[in-house]
Amino acid sequence: MPNVPDPVRENARLVNEAIDGRLPLGGLRVHEAAEHLLTAGGKRLRPALLMLVADAFGRSPRDTVPPALAVEITHSFTLIHDDVMDDDPLRRGEESVHKRWDVPTAILTGDYLYSKAFETALKTDATDATMRRVMETLAETCTLICEGQALDVEYAEADTVSEDDYLRMVELKTGVLFAASTGIGALVSESGIFDEAYGYGLRIGKAFQIHDDVLDLVGESGDLGKTRASDLFEGKNTLVTLHARRNGVDPSLPHDASDAEVEAKVEEIREAGSIGYARERAETLVDGAKDDLDALPEGEPRDALAEVADYLVRRDY
Amino acid sequence: MPNVPDPVRENARLVNEAIDGRLPLGGLRVHEAAEHLLTAGGKRLRPALLMLVADAFGRSPRDTVPPALAVEITHSFTLIHDDVMDDDPLRRGEESVHKRWDVPTAILTGDYLYSKAFETALKTDATDATMRRVMETLAETCTLICEGQALDVEYAEADTVSEDDYLRMVELKTGVLFAASTGIGALVSESGIFDEAYGYGLRIGKAFQIHDDVLDLVGESGDLGKTRASDLFEGKNTLVTLHARRNGVDPSLPHDASDAEVEAKVEEIREAGSIGYARERAETLVDGAKDDLDALPEGEPRDALAEVADYLVRRDY
Repeated sequence: MPNVPDPVRENARLVNEAIDGRLPLGGLRVHEAAEHLLTAGGKRLRPALLMLVADAFGRSPRDTVPPALAVEITHSFTLIHDDVMDDDPLRRGEESVHKRWDVPTAILTGDYLYSKAFETALKTDATDATMRRVMETLAETCTLICEGQALDVEYAEADTVSEDDYLRMVELKTGVLFAASTGIGALVSESGIFDEAYGYGLRIGKAFQIHDDVLDLVGESGDLGKTRASDLFEGKNTLVTLHARRNGVDPSLPHDASDAEVEAKVEEIREAGSIGYARERAETLVDGAKDDLDALPEGEPRDALAEVADYLVRRDY
Repeated sequence: MPNVPDPVRENARLVNEAIDGRLPLGGLRVHEAAEHLLTAGGKRLRPALLMLVADAFGRSPRDTVPPALAVEITHSFTLIHDDVMDDDPLRRGEESVHKRWDVPTAILTGDYLYSKAFETALKTDATDATMRRVMETLAETCTLICEGQALDVEYAEADTVSEDDYLRMVELKTGVLFAASTGIGALVSESGIFDEAYGYGLRIGKAFQIHDDVLDLVGESGDLGKTRASDLFEGKNTLVTLHARRNGVDPSLPHDASDAEVEAKVEEIREAGSIGYARERAETLVDGAKDDLDALPEGEPRDALAEVADYLVRRDY
C-alpha cells in the first residue's frame, strides 16, 4: 500500500502551519465552527497538488500558500454544507458542524468560509492579470461544484441514472476542485500552460471519487471517519452500485441492516465484479492524468504528481 | 410619501432586463429556485446605487450592469440562506425557497448564487488592477455579512445587547453590502475615490435597516411581503425594541397573539417614543450620507443619490 508521497506531506505541513497561524479566527460561534473543521485534519491533497504544480514550474511552495489555502477552504465549505444536505453525522472522524452546533451555524460557517476562500486567494503574490484568471477559475469552479451537488441530489431521486450521468456528476462534484487546484498552480507560476494542469487534476479528481466510493464499501469505518457502506444505506448511485444493478445485484441496504448483512451485501457486490470494475475505471483515469503531466517540466515535483495519481487509487482511506 | 427616484427606477429596469436576458439558468432544481428568487421582484436598490455612483463619474449605466448584477445576486444569496436560518416562510410576497422546495435546495441555491455573483462581477469591463480591488471588496463584504448574521443569531440568544452592539450588527448585516455597491461603483468608474462612496453606502444601508425595523411594526403585511411585527414575535433586538425595553415596555409578543394584541403592543411601543427614536437615528445617518456625496461631481446622478437617501427612510415598504 503506497503512502502519501513525501512532497505532498511536506506541502500539507505548510498548509497546516498556515492555518494554525491564522487562528483564532474570531470570537463568534461561526469562527469556532470554522476552526473545528479546518483543524480536524484531512489530507490537504488539493492545496498540496496546487503547490506541487507551481513547484514544477519553479515557484517555491512557501510562495503559493495563499492560493493553496484558498482551495482547501473552498473544500471545507462544501463539506460543511454537504453534511447538512445529506444529514451526515461524522466528518473526518469528528461530529459534523450541524450536529455539534446546529443547521443555521453550519449554513453560516460554510458561507463564511466561502468568501474567506476568495479573500485568501486574493492574497497571492501574482500579477493583476493572473489574479483575474485565478478568480475566474475559483468562481466558475464553485458554480460547477454546486451543480454537481445538485445533480447528486436529483439523481438520488431519479428512477434511472446512467454511468455517463454519474461520471458527469463526479466530474462536477469532485473533479473540478482538483482541476482548479492544479490549474491555479499553473497560473500562479506563470507557466504559460493551463489546460494540461487542469486536465490532470480533473482526471485524478474523478479517480479519487470513484476510489472513495470503493472505500465506502471495502474500507474500515474507523479509518474513513464515517459510517461504512453509507452509500448502500442511502441507496446512492455510484460506479459500483450502477454496475451491480446492471448485473442483477440489488445494492441497497435497509436502515437496520446488521454488520453481518452489510458484509454479505458487500461480498455479493464484489462477486458481481462491480468493485473490480470501478477500480479499473479509476486506474484508466490515472493513466490519462499521468499523460497530462508530459506538459510539465521534468523533475521531482512532476514525479511526485505522478506518484500522487497512483496513490489516490490505491490508498486505504 | 416619496417614490423611488426615476434614475433608480431606470437602473433597476436595466438590471431586470439583464436578469431576464440570462434566463433560463439551466434545467436543475437549483436553477429553477435561483430564478424564482431573482425574478420575484425587489427594488434592485443596491445595483441601482452602484450604477448611479459610476454614472456620477461619467460611466454609462449600461456599462456597469455586470458589477451591479453581482451585488444583487450577492443580496439574493443572503436572503435565501437567512430565510432558512430564521425559518421565514415568505420573501418578496412569495414562498421562500426552503418552503417552496426544501432546506437542501435552499442551501444549494444560495451557494450557487454566491459564486455566480463573483463570476458576474468578473465580466466587468475594467482593468485587471480595478478588478482585483472589486474582488477584494466583494469577498471581504461577504465575510462581514456572515459575521453580521452570526451576531444577529447570537444576540437573539443573549441576555443583554447594547445599542452599539445592535448598530454594529446592522452595519455588518446590511450596511456593508450597500457600501460595497457604492464603493464598487466608484472603483469601476476609475473615479480615484473610494472611501466617501463606501461611507455613503454604509450610512444609508444602516438607515435602511433601521427603517426596515420600523416598517416591521408600522407597515402593512401585504406591502412588506412578510408577517407583520415578526420582530416582536421572534423577540428580536432592534433599535426600536431596545429603546422600548430601556423605557419600561416589554416589546415581545406570544406566538398566538391576535391582530388586536399586535396592534396594542405596537401602540404601546409608539407611545414610549421608540419608533420616533429609531426614525430620528435613521435621519441622522442619512444626513451624514448626504455629506459624503460632496466628494462626487455635481449633476443629476449625485442629486438622485441624495434623493435615494431620503427615500430610504421615508418609504412605506
